[in-house]
Amino acid sequence: MNRYLEDVSPGDHFPGGSVEVTEADILAFARAFDPQPMHMDAAFAAETRFKGLIASGWHTAALVMRQIALAKPLGDTEVLGMGVENLRWHQPVRPGDTLHVDMEVVATKPSESNPRYGTVKFLITTRNQHGETVMTHSPICWVPRRPPG
Amino acid sequence: MNRYLEDVSPGDHFPGGSVEVTEADILAFARAFDPQPMHMDAAFAAETRFKGLIASGWHTAALVMRQIALAKPLGDTEVLGMGVENLRWHQPVRPGDTLHVDMEVVATKPSESNPRYGTVKFLITTRNQHGETVMTHSPICWVPRRPPG
Repeated sequence: MNRYLEDVSPGDHFPGGSVEVTEADILAFARAFDPQPMHMDAAFAAETRFKGLIASGWHTAALVMRQIALAKPLGDTEVLGMGVENLRWHQPVRPGDTLHVDMEVVATKPSESNPRYGTVKFLITTRNQHGETVMTHSPICWVPRRPPG
Repeated sequence: MNRYLEDVSPGDHFPGGSVEVTEADILAFARAFDPQPMHMDAAFAAETRFKGLIASGWHTAALVMRQIALAKPLGDTEVLGMGVENLRWHQPVRPGDTLHVDMEVVATKPSESNPRYGTVKFLITTRNQHGETVMTHSPICWVPRRPPG
């Protein structure tokens, strides 16, 4: 079922699923998209202040997107991002970590340019298995308004 | 050679490389990280207002990260993101598009909490082969200060 702008309100919470991040995942993403030694070279990474491999922040963001797509906070309505505010990587993500994603609606607004659409701003909080927040961000999504009648 | 906070200034420009985005790339990223029909199902996507497959915005962001990592705007100093401001996906990225990345330093600031580090804020502008801006964002990176002496 599609959800419309009118179907979500600030304060609505949607639990996301969890995902384990393996060393193989971290290496594969880094080779494809973020080829820097702290993401790809365990021996190098062990000598840094992180004391081991850390995931590319964009890998974490992509894993979180997967959880959002699977959780379907807008039902069968697509989650179409126009942009993101305040993305912060608070803590490193390491091999073996399990990420838990929580979604909250923080604002909804009818579009000024298109009466058939509006925007929903989320706050997405991603925590690891220790309950530490590793990433927060606020995607702003383009969402259809409920058709009249 | 490592570059330090003192080696970059607002207004500095760094050209990034270019990358072609194939349909296979778009499908593979979507299956792994953003399994929604507009990114995975060409027949579905043809019937949307986009009239065809569009890349996940996070795929575009990851491809841009690759260009930044290869361009090494900080020399051999790692590009370590603390966060991102004002990420905007202005136009869809489609199969066959070629993305060009341009990096500009917009601010540098010594850290208030750690005298050995500071932050560099970039403005990254990504355009397609038609010169249209498809994505802009401002990563904030954690950069070592030049050691005394």
